[in-house]
Amino acid sequence: MIYLDHAAATPVSDKALQAMLPYFSEQFFNPSAPYLPAKRVREAYESAKDQLAHVIGAKGVDLVITAGATESINLAFTVSHGKVLTIATEHAAVLEAAKLHDHALVKVDKAGLIDLRDLEHNLSDQVDLVSVSLANNELGTIQPLAEISEIIRRVRQDRLQRGITTPLYLHSDASQALNLLDINVSRLGVDLLTINAAKCGGPKGVGALYITHGVKLAPINVGGGQERGLRSGTENVPGLIGFATAAAEAKSHLSYHRKQYQEMTKILRQELSALQPQPIFLGNPKKQLANFCPVTFPGLDAERLIYRLEGREVYVSTGAACAASKGSKSHVLAAIGLSDAEIAGSLRISLGSTNTVDQIREAARIICEEVTHEYERLSR
Amino acid sequence: MIYLDHAAATPVSDKALQAMLPYFSEQFFNPSAPYLPAKRVREAYESAKDQLAHVIGAKGVDLVITAGATESINLAFTVSHGKVLTIATEHAAVLEAAKLHDHALVKVDKAGLIDLRDLEHNLSDQVDLVSVSLANNELGTIQPLAEISEIIRRVRQDRLQRGITTPLYLHSDASQALNLLDINVSRLGVDLLTINAAKCGGPKGVGALYITHGVKLAPINVGGGQERGLRSGTENVPGLIGFATAAAEAKSHLSYHRKQYQEMTKILRQELSALQPQPIFLGNPKKQLANFCPVTFPGLDAERLIYRLEGREVYVSTGAACAASKGSKSHVLAAIGLSDAEIAGSLRISLGSTNTVDQIREAARIICEEVTHEYERLSR
Repeated sequence: MIYLDHAAATPVSDKALQAMLPYFSEQFFNPSAPYLPAKRVREAYESAKDQLAHVIGAKGVDLVITAGATESINLAFTVSHGKVLTIATEHAAVLEAAKLHDHALVKVDKAGLIDLRDLEHNLSDQVDLVSVSLANNELGTIQPLAEISEIIRRVRQDRLQRGITTPLYLHSDASQALNLLDINVSRLGVDLLTINAAKCGGPKGVGALYITHGVKLAPINVGGGQERGLRSGTENVPGLIGFATAAAEAKSHLSYHRKQYQEMTKILRQELSALQPQPIFLGNPKKQLANFCPVTFPGLDAERLIYRLEGREVYVSTGAACAASKGSKSHVLAAIGLSDAEIAGSLRISLGSTNTVDQIREAARIICEEVTHEYERLSR
Repeated sequence: MIYLDHAAATPVSDKALQAMLPYFSEQFFNPSAPYLPAKRVREAYESAKDQLAHVIGAKGVDLVITAGATESINLAFTVSHGKVLTIATEHAAVLEAAKLHDHALVKVDKAGLIDLRDLEHNLSDQVDLVSVSLANNELGTIQPLAEISEIIRRVRQDRLQRGITTPLYLHSDASQALNLLDINVSRLGVDLLTINAAKCGGPKGVGALYITHGVKLAPINVGGGQERGLRSGTENVPGLIGFATAAAEAKSHLSYHRKQYQEMTKILRQELSALQPQPIFLGNPKKQLANFCPVTFPGLDAERLIYRLEGREVYVSTGAACAASKGSKSHVLAAIGLSDAEIAGSLRISLGSTNTVDQIREAARIICEEVTHEYERLSR
């Protein structure tokens, strides 16, 4: 089996699973309970939070632990009482959350990169939230967050000088980037950052939202007042411990993995480039996560291709899993101006810890065979 | 170690943990992805949902899987656009959710049982949601849900006859009851039912909301559209599988465990009754979960007692863990009319699968010794 859909889900790493295990049946105590074994669970929980925060250059108190990126994004959006700016290539969670507000979409180019001039143009005094993912989930496109936050800093200063009191915050969904980029919230200049365990070797059902000191959010769920009142509910202790372990592990292997993925995607691109007609690689490799190789075979039906590749135990997807299951065409690829034929023939190939160079050579060979087979079928 | 706080948290059962394990690192695929191994994960997820639903006499399609009881409760409350009725002894999640609406509290008696006449009296035409837990989390008091739903049925009919179109729904938080009562949503007559994995041998961070066909809720989190659009976010596959396994296991041992707990609480009551001054057992044993033995030693400081018992490896709490950690006095015990001295001296003892009869005898002996020690200290 060759799994090439790490952007959809990653296996829980051995280290993360081993770290989680004691907290299911042995250290199972409610971290808010008053006796010593429960207090030890509380300590382990808070310490995991510190460990996770450290990965993104933050402190444990800056994090709210959630059930995943979607919840983090929805929580982040409670900061806005005005207008939201985002881009059309964002994940459905950001777009759907934006739709609950007055919002506008800033232009992106063919690689999915935000148009900074259009951002400036759209930053009216009503805007109080800009939400741009650190890396796109279908293209792997890395957005210039530091440049965006610099623009936001200037707009804030300008507002201050003009006596405009509307605040302006920057949120970024970094779900896809945690195990591929060296993330530091100060350097990025974000006020809010969404991260997700299930995309970096941690378990499903856990995420976090980084919140800069002083930013006021409204709880989505009220109740026992956990997570500083922002996220009530008994803490998912093994979940957070698995997340923190996986994130720290990914961080420590960051440059090694990046080099590895760069080599693998290079091979993949070379091999697939030999095909006739030539495939179109999506995004800009210089501003793309190292493990992403989104590609389109115009004229082909990617759904058929996925099915044929599945028969040979090569697993890829057409786009975001949650969109794929609805059978709707990718809103991301439409937003970067691809034709219907280009969208219909596109594969999202995303590498990860389960892959080896040999696997990638083998996968490239199989994909070439199946693509050739499909083109031949069409030409008959 | 003798753990007597199963109402706060239960260890994940061996069976549940074994069922979860393959879904972390092997069957880790995103259930919405389009290839066969992912489809198998989808099947396992849906089949676990059916299994869980079956435990409460429902179908898988009737459940929305959440991150726990608090989220389920918050989701349930989105049904209300009018006035909410609840009782003052509910868990903080219900009370805080009610506070976001126009709401009123129906009277309860000294055992925490709802006053049905006061409920009827309060059921004005503005009320569209009644939320009463199946069993209280500090007293174990079992509410007469079937009688409540019968009253609601009559009010609905009356509204219909008078041309009042305001709907009326019944929600119950059954978090504490899933492993102790034979729950059937039709028999209870509820429209919405909250259940929770972490109180019945499943993992933390997973819950569910049962929703009767036709009841319209609003999503708390928007995004990829999972769980019929009511709860977006990648599904917590191992979490649900652990929950379903634990719930089914608990159901199959229901009557055995109930008998066991009845015997144990009987022993505990007998032993503690020998104390002078006599403790006051809270709640009505005839309408109480079999594993609950809430008790107060008026005049004593329960916090000190917990600390002393902790020193002897007997772990009990004063009330809900989330409230305990804030050091505030129990709103439940205040609501049933206990004096400040009675509240200050109260322990929540809740038995569970980790206990044996010998343990309970031993715990009773230790509690008696420590209570006696504390009374003697005060009389010096």
